[in-house]
Amino acid sequence: MMEEENNIEEDDAASPPVRTLHRQRVSLQKNSVCSRSYFMVVMVFFHVYIINVIALLLYVHYNNGSTPSTPNLDFSRRDSSHKVSEASDAQTPADSGFARDMYLPRIEGIRVGHVQKVSLVPGKVHEMKTLSLKPLLFEIPNFLSGEECSVVVRLAQLKGLMESQVMVPEGQEELNQQLNLSPEEIFNFLDLNQDGQLQPHEILTHSRVRDGIWLTSENLKEIYDGLKVDQDGNGLLSLEEFRHLRSDAFQHFLMQRGVERSQLVRNSRHTWLYQGQGAHQVLQDLRKRITSLTRLPSSLVELSEPLQVVRYEQGGHYHAHHDSGPVYPETACTHTRLTANTTSPFQTSCRYITVLFYLNNVEEGGETTFPVADNRTYEEASLIQNDVDLLDTRKHCDKGNLRVKPTKGTAVFWYNYLSDGRGWVGEQDEYSLHGGCVVTRGTKWVANNWINVDPDYQRQAHYQQLVSQQQEIQEQEEIISELNSERHTETHQDL
Amino acid sequence: MMEEENNIEEDDAASPPVRTLHRQRVSLQKNSVCSRSYFMVVMVFFHVYIINVIALLLYVHYNNGSTPSTPNLDFSRRDSSHKVSEASDAQTPADSGFARDMYLPRIEGIRVGHVQKVSLVPGKVHEMKTLSLKPLLFEIPNFLSGEECSVVVRLAQLKGLMESQVMVPEGQEELNQQLNLSPEEIFNFLDLNQDGQLQPHEILTHSRVRDGIWLTSENLKEIYDGLKVDQDGNGLLSLEEFRHLRSDAFQHFLMQRGVERSQLVRNSRHTWLYQGQGAHQVLQDLRKRITSLTRLPSSLVELSEPLQVVRYEQGGHYHAHHDSGPVYPETACTHTRLTANTTSPFQTSCRYITVLFYLNNVEEGGETTFPVADNRTYEEASLIQNDVDLLDTRKHCDKGNLRVKPTKGTAVFWYNYLSDGRGWVGEQDEYSLHGGCVVTRGTKWVANNWINVDPDYQRQAHYQQLVSQQQEIQEQEEIISELNSERHTETHQDL
Repeated sequence: MMEEENNIEEDDAASPPVRTLHRQRVSLQKNSVCSRSYFMVVMVFFHVYIINVIALLLYVHYNNGSTPSTPNLDFSRRDSSHKVSEASDAQTPADSGFARDMYLPRIEGIRVGHVQKVSLVPGKVHEMKTLSLKPLLFEIPNFLSGEECSVVVRLAQLKGLMESQVMVPEGQEELNQQLNLSPEEIFNFLDLNQDGQLQPHEILTHSRVRDGIWLTSENLKEIYDGLKVDQDGNGLLSLEEFRHLRSDAFQHFLMQRGVERSQLVRNSRHTWLYQGQGAHQVLQDLRKRITSLTRLPSSLVELSEPLQVVRYEQGGHYHAHHDSGPVYPETACTHTRLTANTTSPFQTSCRYITVLFYLNNVEEGGETTFPVADNRTYEEASLIQNDVDLLDTRKHCDKGNLRVKPTKGTAVFWYNYLSDGRGWVGEQDEYSLHGGCVVTRGTKWVANNWINVDPDYQRQAHYQQLVSQQQEIQEQEEIISELNSERHTETHQDL
Repeated sequence: MMEEENNIEEDDAASPPVRTLHRQRVSLQKNSVCSRSYFMVVMVFFHVYIINVIALLLYVHYNNGSTPSTPNLDFSRRDSSHKVSEASDAQTPADSGFARDMYLPRIEGIRVGHVQKVSLVPGKVHEMKTLSLKPLLFEIPNFLSGEECSVVVRLAQLKGLMESQVMVPEGQEELNQQLNLSPEEIFNFLDLNQDGQLQPHEILTHSRVRDGIWLTSENLKEIYDGLKVDQDGNGLLSLEEFRHLRSDAFQHFLMQRGVERSQLVRNSRHTWLYQGQGAHQVLQDLRKRITSLTRLPSSLVELSEPLQVVRYEQGGHYHAHHDSGPVYPETACTHTRLTANTTSPFQTSCRYITVLFYLNNVEEGGETTFPVADNRTYEEASLIQNDVDLLDTRKHCDKGNLRVKPTKGTAVFWYNYLSDGRGWVGEQDEYSLHGGCVVTRGTKWVANNWINVDPDYQRQAHYQQLVSQQQEIQEQEEIISELNSERHTETHQDL
């Protein structure tokens, strides 16, 4: 074949490069500088060839390197014949705000009692058991070794613990003033069954906690007597009786009478431990293990709150609550608030996942209760009945649907939010309601890791972008200062 | 730079190809055939270059072309730091049987009441509403147009409908003989609360259906009286009383007395409509739409059962049942049984998904009931109480957790099996229990599409492989016969 090509004539229909070469050959022969010029041609080809091979290899490498990020997108969007969009945003055929680099995989619960093996630490296999589907809740025994538990407790003790106290929701007083509600309007709002009377549980459902004080129906009776507000003594408040009360009358009365620790929402002490570079290796390892466990992007885990270590003394408790509130379009997340450039009066901590570690074995009590786990329905009003108050972890922990016994080294974790069906955070999962049952004997040590994610994808992406820019600037500054110090050292050595 | 290289001497440390070329140049100059030989060298380089570029482009193309299939694999396996395996197969670190080409995506339910938009037909958007999470159940209004519903009904009428009757489970008699149980053993098995007496609901829980006859507690009383078996007349059977009965005594008594249609498990007529090539366009479209809806590989949908069309007359019903049974290692699936090369006495239809279409509006009754949908627990024994029998769709349809009203054109679909957590079919979802409530006025027309998947991945893969080989052979035969007929025609034309 090569022989044949060698016989091509000038008027042949060969490809242009071949023809050019042919001509070159002819002209070079004539110039009788053939050897040098031919060498040039060969070298040029050789270099072009090498450059092309390198370029293609780079292209292949680049192509392979970029694909692994694609599967991180929403799985359901891969099938182009089947576009899925939320019902809430009515018209999103093009889905313009949907260019996502991050996908939040959710672990499948399969069914209650399902056990899956996970490898989080080299050379060790953990068993992860599904405890409930609503909320999506898992238990992993021996997540921490005994030694690791002790280290965390010691570090917390070294740092020192402060009284845990749920704060007055910021701006609530102003909010009340902003909303400018009349006593009649508040009365109607509280009167769930619209019978013109406020039953104790109707008051507790909506005005349970203020200044960290937890109202019970017993408290209410006491208050009614003390303030002489329930004049007919039937245990119910009429609109007329309600009118005589100032908005914070109940808590105000209790504050003046004196409040015991057991009457607070939360009766414990806690501290925060930083888990980033420079922190104790156990704390850093813990964070890495959580990234493996939750399968979330490490950037999300690293930008989340520090580890919270909590100590409950005998008699300590934490009444049932949600770790993170519902999110409406106007709600800001604490962690992205500064970068979101909004001034919303509504704010929540946007804790997508809670990971709770038990750091010791409690002698008696101290279970974590999920009173409505896997309930068929969630009705706020039915949680507080006059006889059974499912939110009260001092009295009715045994009435809830699910209780986890604290076992040293065990981790439990759950999702405080549902999926949005498109690979991101959706609505709050109301069923994630939980509390710490009263410790009846001994002390209870636990730690919490929360993974903060803004349900507004754009806000989270913007936040992470700003943080990484900030980090780059810092790194550059560090390099410059290092260079400066090096030059300084060099200069120093020169002297 | 080229100038420099041109001046290389033979003992220079240039790269081998350059040196070789240099030598060649020298020797060629000496042979004074330089022009032709140089052209040869250039041509060889040029061809090698072109071949390499083509090879690399093919490599790139092949690489890109193969990646889209990879995302179809189990998502959780992508993160190599987090291997997940079922607890049941204790030691699967290498997971040898895990090389899968198929992945079964499951639609996310998010929460009860969640609505997602899906596009199944060009230019139309359907709304898919989550009705329950246990089972994972969705409703899609207007899945079929009114015209399409009428076509399906007419096609079924043309084909003709036969009496629906649940058959005696194949080999049950032999199974009883194989197991060789004594009356004492059977008595102990039936006596759920182990009080030495058989309550009516204990008998109904395990020996409810035989020969398609549905026992009720009223039937039982009748039978006890007729057979004079309950000698002390307390409505309970002692072991002594039980001993006097032959194993099929209850059904035998009813058969002899005469059974009405309303006493059967299922009181309806049905037929099957083939949906493959050559079938009515509406039936073919329907199958395509189901592939889009379920997002399953089309090969799976195409190899599933034909469409079942069912007519319930006034008074018709279908007591609560599972569309597909639990699967144990020794259980065979009906659809893969012939290729699986096993002779298991246990067999079930392995219907992963049920899609149910309502083809008309029923005047009154005829709802589809899911008596335990989203129940916190599933207890077989608690389904049948002496006063309320949740499985009885003639009497207690209103007591179940969820009922779907039949609306012309609406489709509901649910998963009869859970996920195995690795992208394949897992355990049976017991909560998928459902039934057709009695039609109190009018006629009810529905159709069912079942997607058959073998929970044993290897068996399903083997089955599909054999079927596609078969299809290839058939196609080849068709081509040969076409060629033959063409040749025949040609010969014919020649004449």
